[in-house]
Amino acid sequence: MVKVMATGAFDILHLGHIYFLKEAKKLGDILIVVVATDSTVRKLKHEPVNPEKIRLDLIKELKIVDKAYLGYENDIYEILKEIKPDIITLGYDQLHDEKTIEKELKNRNIKAKVIRLKEYKEGSDLEGTRKIIKKIIAAYEIQKTIERIEGENK
Amino acid sequence: MVKVMATGAFDILHLGHIYFLKEAKKLGDILIVVVATDSTVRKLKHEPVNPEKIRLDLIKELKIVDKAYLGYENDIYEILKEIKPDIITLGYDQLHDEKTIEKELKNRNIKAKVIRLKEYKEGSDLEGTRKIIKKIIAAYEIQKTIERIEGENK
Repeated sequence: MVKVMATGAFDILHLGHIYFLKEAKKLGDILIVVVATDSTVRKLKHEPVNPEKIRLDLIKELKIVDKAYLGYENDIYEILKEIKPDIITLGYDQLHDEKTIEKELKNRNIKAKVIRLKEYKEGSDLEGTRKIIKKIIAAYEIQKTIERIEGENK
Repeated sequence: MVKVMATGAFDILHLGHIYFLKEAKKLGDILIVVVATDSTVRKLKHEPVNPEKIRLDLIKELKIVDKAYLGYENDIYEILKEIKPDIITLGYDQLHDEKTIEKELKNRNIKAKVIRLKEYKEGSDLEGTRKIIKKIIAAYEIQKTIERIEGENK
């Protein structure tokens, strides 16, 4: 039984996440997902739209996910002692560096392979979180413009 | 085998959707979800953020969903001939009227019970689509304000 681990913020679920998780699961038998805490998301990316508990609960609802955990607050390696993955996957755009992770794993005597996944080629079909946010803001700006114009004509 | 049908836009998936689908499935054995087309979403609510194909593909990834279809363009009852549900569930906030649906079903000789689900009591834990959109816009407005202030101090 090969345990594969994938991590991420999974803020506003989209098909890019599903693709990432499916590619990860192909590498083994069981897919375990670690959802980054709000503080980790803040450090690595931005203020999360959805709080960690909600992001975790939603990830658990996916067919592809066998088990899901919330990451640890300060030490991202701490959870590995619990999960004991055989493979740790990295998304193509995740900032973590393979070499650094492998070194940290060795220091902690954790035997896991680190594999970076490739980018989805048919990317145009996917609606990433950033794309979704951009669309919402664009719609909001259009609405504001309409309101301004309508106001001017009153 | 009791077939339960649930419909919706499912634009930006959130725990409110999961709650709705879980409550629906409790009424039978198989949960079939009909995802509203973009044109139906436009008529009933607003411009969808995610296109119908993407909304459908994401719904199919949920553990709770046994089967998912895209609705028909013009006649929302057309799909019922294919699915043959025993129960049609309505979300607590879905605009459709039970009586009208029951009448239309009778006219078409479709035997299905229409059941409206109750609102989730712990609603504050859920992040609905509208709440998510509001949060994104609020963050955007704050960012714009910061940029304006920073610009003024240059």
